[in-house]
Order: sequence, then C-alpha cells, then structure tokens
Amino acid sequence: MKKYQGYFIDLDGTVYKGKDRIPAAARFIRRLQAAHKTILFVTNNSTRQPSFVADNLAHNHDIHVSADNVYTSALATADYLDGIAGDRRKVYIVGESGLAAALQAKHFELTNDDEEVQPDYVVVGLDTNTNYHKLEQAVLDIRAGARFIGTNGDSNLPNERGMTPGAGSLVKLVEYATQKKPLMVGKPQTTIMKMALQKCHLSVDDVLMVGDNYHTDIEAGINVGMDTLLVYTGLSKPADVKREKVQPTYTVESLDEWSVQ
Amino acid sequence: MKKYQGYFIDLDGTVYKGKDRIPAAARFIRRLQAAHKTILFVTNNSTRQPSFVADNLAHNHDIHVSADNVYTSALATADYLDGIAGDRRKVYIVGESGLAAALQAKHFELTNDDEEVQPDYVVVGLDTNTNYHKLEQAVLDIRAGARFIGTNGDSNLPNERGMTPGAGSLVKLVEYATQKKPLMVGKPQTTIMKMALQKCHLSVDDVLMVGDNYHTDIEAGINVGMDTLLVYTGLSKPADVKREKVQPTYTVESLDEWSVQ
Repeated sequence: MKKYQGYFIDLDGTVYKGKDRIPAAARFIRRLQAAHKTILFVTNNSTRQPSFVADNLAHNHDIHVSADNVYTSALATADYLDGIAGDRRKVYIVGESGLAAALQAKHFELTNDDEEVQPDYVVVGLDTNTNYHKLEQAVLDIRAGARFIGTNGDSNLPNERGMTPGAGSLVKLVEYATQKKPLMVGKPQTTIMKMALQKCHLSVDDVLMVGDNYHTDIEAGINVGMDTLLVYTGLSKPADVKREKVQPTYTVESLDEWSVQ
Repeated sequence: MKKYQGYFIDLDGTVYKGKDRIPAAARFIRRLQAAHKTILFVTNNSTRQPSFVADNLAHNHDIHVSADNVYTSALATADYLDGIAGDRRKVYIVGESGLAAALQAKHFELTNDDEEVQPDYVVVGLDTNTNYHKLEQAVLDIRAGARFIGTNGDSNLPNERGMTPGAGSLVKLVEYATQKKPLMVGKPQTTIMKMALQKCHLSVDDVLMVGDNYHTDIEAGINVGMDTLLVYTGLSKPADVKREKVQPTYTVESLDEWSVQ
C-alpha cells in the first residue's frame, strides 16, 4: 500500500450513516490524526457551514476536527468563482446559508429576486425553502447571460421523510428551462477535487479519496486521477461495483481494515 | 384540400400572440363557425379553467366560443385518469386551479401535503406558487408507488418577465428525483389528442390539427395520425420546419389563406 500524505473523506455513508455512528470511522480518523495526516472531509452538501459540520461530528460521532477540516461544495464553488471572477462579483443563488456564507466570505455580492440587478453568475444548490419565484429568477438571469453553476448533481437527499429532492433535481429544472448545461462543482466532477487540493497544498498523487459511493466519491477520484478507497458501509454494493469498468484502487468492508502508512 | 369536420386549434401563437390579436385567426374561426365545423381549442396550459379561456378569447380577441370549445391538458388528464382509475381516485397535484377543478369535476379526491394519505396518482403541471415542500411531496408519493403523470412537457412559458419555467421544467425535477418516467398528457404526446377526439366523437381522419409550433402542435397531429396545418404566425419558422423529416400536411403564412371546405 502506498503512503498518502492526505486523505479526502466523504461524510454520510463513510463516517456516519444519517444519525447513526460508524465506530470504525471514528477509529480511522484517530489513527490518521495520530499519524499527522492531512484530513479533509469533502462533501457535496452545500447547505451547512463547516463549523456546523464539525460540531455535528464532535457531538454525535466522537470525531474531533476543526471547521477547517471540512470542505463543502459551497466552499469549492466560492473558491472556484473567486479564481475566475475578477471584478464580476454579483451572484444570484438558489441555496441555503452554507452557500451564501461561503460566497460572502469571498466577497461576492448576492443579488436578490426583488431588484433588477443582473448577476454575473447563478449558483443552484439545495434549498429546501425554495419556490417557483426563486427558480424563475435563476432561469431568467441565466437566459439574460449569467453563467450557470450547480453545486452538485445529487438527485436525492436521504432524510427522515425518505429520498427527498437533492440539489441536482433543482439543477435539472433550471437546465431544462434554460436549455443550458451548468458547470457542476461537486463530486463526481473534478472542480471540488481540484479546489480541495489547492486548499491543502497537496498534489493529486499525495492524496487518497475515501468514500462509500462509487458514482460520486470514487468517480471523483478517478476523474481527477487520484487513488481511491471504497468502503462498503454505505450506498455502493460489491456486486454493483464489480461491474464498473474502472475499479477503485482499494476496497474494504470496514475502515478498520485500512492500515495507515 | 380535404374536407374536415373538426378543427383542433392551438391558442398562443395561433389565434393570438400573448396579449396581441391575430385578426386572421378571428376571421378563420368565424368562417369555421359559419360552416358549422366542430371547433376545439386544444391547449397545453393546465392552469386556467375553460370558462376563463373562453372569456379571454371573447373580451380580448373577438373570438366568441363557449367553454366547451376549450380543451386543456388539465381536462385531458382528468378524462384520461377517469378512464383508467376505477376506484383509485386519490390524486396529489402540483398544479393550479385549472388542474384541481378538472380532477374534482371527475370526482377525484385531491390529497394534500399535510396528511399521511398515499395517493394513487401524482399529477405535475405548472404551478407558479409551488415550492420545495410541494415538489418533495410529489417525489415521496411517487417513490411510495403513486403513478406519475405530467400535464405537459413545455420547458418554458413566455410571459411579461421573459421565458419562465414551464410545466415540463417542474416535471424534470420530479423525474430526476424519482428516476421514473412520467406519462405525459399534453402535445406532442397523443393522450390529449385521443381524449379530444373522444370528447368530440370524431375520428382522427375527420379532424385537422392547426398550430404554430412544429414540436408541439404539429408533432401531436403526426403522432396520432391526424392531418396538420402549420401557420407561421408563432414559434416555428419555415427554414426550421423544412429540415424536419415529417412535414406538416399544409402550411400557410396566415389563416386567411386557408379555405374552409
């Protein structure tokens, strides 16, 4: 097994299952911390701020990291836009506080749906308070020339009600109504991975991507040329993964099986 | 030119343009009325009730017909479901009053998003007051077994703000979040055409489909085996239509050119 300096790690299905703990994951994180590895939780969830995610890990899952160890698709979107925007800093968002805070921290100005200001970018992420009027505004702004960005393509979000619509479902609405393809930031796209590497000052060969979902976590690693570790504690099942053309670099049933070099 | 007993006629782009009149269309309708033809305005718009559509035609476009001459995708949805539902009559809708009224007139019971009643069908149409919670309910109901129906697939609705999201855009969100294909009722699908023929007691050979949009009106006629008349007062342009494999039966620049046999 190769020695990795950094670990990019998915959250739901990998280090916890909804509200349930995965004790092997907590042990895995402690071993990484003892070995002074760079740890970054890379998550498609754009709705919550990193400090909230870190608090949840500490209080409910006995995983003790700082907000700086959490990298959301919202942060990746803000970092990506910050790199290309120059003085084009007006953004209209469909999204929650995590996305708004990430963009504002990078000095973007959020336009709203009541004023006649044409934004430079429209970012669509999950917003469980969204409505027709907000989505209409996103569509009109993109049709008027704003560049269309999607935080992540997840079709669903598992919660206590069931498989509710994810960010990708809102993106699909806007895509169909604008007939424009968005730039997608989250896994399995490479933007979030490149921005995460930049944040950690690591190169792709130094990092292992760890996750439970072949089609987001593992494909994100494959797409960016990063080694991958699939753990079968979440969504993907061995029989399904075996049918994939490109296999994960490593697979384990539990993160206890992984020996940190 | 063949003699047709009935005329199915599109509305926007064909008999009016938004708020603007198309005088040749009003003359065309009067000639059809003088010749005692069966007239049915066949529209994908599910939001308004037929009486409202007839009033608008009378007051703003000098076209005088009864509500019975208007056939919306909402009425077609209700007629279609009435034919297959038996005693499975619980329906959850994303839609406005036109859709609700059409289903209630056929004795369907509308479920709402506050109660724990599993509907037999979920119908998604345009609803400019919709929100995440209502769309989430549609997704959960379909995932729990309700059959998924879309009133129409229009990506956009032209209005004073621009090209706002149409029913088809809401359908796409639900389709992506459920990974289920809906049965689509409106043009260019054949369900609305078959239901309209049933309503008029006419066979497909007796009717001419008249419209301005190749991809909805004309394709609906082609798909059901009905002759078609494309009028170039709306969306489709001659150069685009010439590239289509299947041509309209007839094309005119203005409905004044059409001689009623």
